[in-house]
Amino acid sequence: MVKIDVKECAALLKEFDNYLILTHRNPDGDTLGSAFALHRALSRLNKKSTVRCIDTIPPKYSYLWNGIHNDDIEYDKIIAVDVADRKLLGEAFDELYGDKVFLCIDHHLSNREYAQHLLLEDRAAAAVIIYEIICELGVEITPEIANCVYTGLATDTGCFMFSNTTPTVHRIAADVMDKGADYTFINRLMFETKTLSYLKLEQLAVSSIETHFDGECAIMTITQDMFKKSGSDESECDGIAGLPRKIEGVKIAVTIRERLDGSYKVSLRTVEPYDAAKICAHFGGGGHHAAAGCDFNCSIDEIKSSLLKAIKEELE
Amino acid sequence: MVKIDVKECAALLKEFDNYLILTHRNPDGDTLGSAFALHRALSRLNKKSTVRCIDTIPPKYSYLWNGIHNDDIEYDKIIAVDVADRKLLGEAFDELYGDKVFLCIDHHLSNREYAQHLLLEDRAAAAVIIYEIICELGVEITPEIANCVYTGLATDTGCFMFSNTTPTVHRIAADVMDKGADYTFINRLMFETKTLSYLKLEQLAVSSIETHFDGECAIMTITQDMFKKSGSDESECDGIAGLPRKIEGVKIAVTIRERLDGSYKVSLRTVEPYDAAKICAHFGGGGHHAAAGCDFNCSIDEIKSSLLKAIKEELE
Repeated sequence: MVKIDVKECAALLKEFDNYLILTHRNPDGDTLGSAFALHRALSRLNKKSTVRCIDTIPPKYSYLWNGIHNDDIEYDKIIAVDVADRKLLGEAFDELYGDKVFLCIDHHLSNREYAQHLLLEDRAAAAVIIYEIICELGVEITPEIANCVYTGLATDTGCFMFSNTTPTVHRIAADVMDKGADYTFINRLMFETKTLSYLKLEQLAVSSIETHFDGECAIMTITQDMFKKSGSDESECDGIAGLPRKIEGVKIAVTIRERLDGSYKVSLRTVEPYDAAKICAHFGGGGHHAAAGCDFNCSIDEIKSSLLKAIKEELE
Repeated sequence: MVKIDVKECAALLKEFDNYLILTHRNPDGDTLGSAFALHRALSRLNKKSTVRCIDTIPPKYSYLWNGIHNDDIEYDKIIAVDVADRKLLGEAFDELYGDKVFLCIDHHLSNREYAQHLLLEDRAAAAVIIYEIICELGVEITPEIANCVYTGLATDTGCFMFSNTTPTVHRIAADVMDKGADYTFINRLMFETKTLSYLKLEQLAVSSIETHFDGECAIMTITQDMFKKSGSDESECDGIAGLPRKIEGVKIAVTIRERLDGSYKVSLRTVEPYDAAKICAHFGGGGHHAAAGCDFNCSIDEIKSSLLKAIKEELE
């Protein structure tokens, strides 16, 4: 594994002509925005690439690949974008591609260094790094590239609200807005549009919230039953893990989400100085300092008691 | 009334030494951030000023005036910041000061031109204009001024989410962040901190939502009874009017809020091309294209039927 910087990465990208670009499973705005921005930039250099994700890409992101003919191509090299761990490619993709990733472009300090070349920077979004690569490549930021970069920036910073937002993020946002990013459309679609069924799910989720340790920890639980009752589904729940952290006084917020197969996805959100990634590492998970996740295959009560033990340690 | 620009405004401010700075009633982050930024900039020019608001300033804004000794002073001139109409000073202040406002700095195109000098620009926040005045005055942006400007920008743009957010807003945000704005603290306080009682109020409010005109209009009602049941109060409700606009397909969102005295405050939020200010003008209210308000003194049913008539016209 060779660590490289933005300049070296741009040079590397110029060497080959056909790329397979992989995103992480359960794709979000940053992995998709970064992948399609890179695809669009490469095609302006007359290079071919295909973006692939193991999961179906939610239709709300369709504006990102609008106009792209994403046919399978013969590829020379594989690029993984915003993928901290080869397991996050998804099981089948990990088997197919996991040991063949030529270049990984990532912003998670927990990156497992599985790729031959790693461009890792501690930035708010992978899209920040992609923007810098595109500038380094000398490719003009088209309105379509601007949309992709803006989407990555905005979604990974909670629309510039989270503590990971830096002056650089704002300046890149300003630049891609100048270059045609349709931020009104994107913000409305990503942050302001909720279905009535989702609002009902939130109601049910709020009523499940319990607090611990003098209100410093809040746990919210979302069951499959709540999805049924509200008419909502998993695809609408991207931001819901941020909800319990909003409660006054809460330092560590936990969202336990039941999957269709009965397993549980746990998301942690923390306030400085508490480390979400450290808590999740106890359970084989990972992520960032302020936002991390892990999986469980036991009952909700067992999950809670395991988590509360680790959280108590962290709070102390 | 003389219309002036930023340069002329800076020159005017240099002419006198003692100012009374007025904000609008029900003060928000922009009127307060702008007023205290101006106060702090003036004091760096060795000018005295006092910021006054007819209503008690919510304690969450205390960081804005931290360290300021806001004693009443003898003043030469009155400045109103972010006050589109002298009535918005509040009744007693309107009587005392309404016809004596020397300078009004505002970003509402609906401004009633009540001041002797008017600096009116169509910007996302009054704080954008204040920032430009401070730069024109040659005053250094201290971390305290940076906090005030950031607060105005962030609160009036829904943390850079609303369609009024421009590249300039992002660039000013980046600059004041570089100059020490504690954006993590401010964002968390303004946007991410909700009490459990407020979350419960949202639950009740969501259950009141009704839709009209094939889902293009949503009406949410918040009664005093809901405040009682949830344990929440008016001071927590700044952003709640944005909620019904989030529903997929909604073009015109209405929030009807019962006041303690039994009157009703109506807030409209619209999606392009629908004009919230135009609808509210039918009922003696006003505001911006995408966000406006008006008052009613009749029953909820009467309010709804009056509004629905005006909304139907606008939708057609």
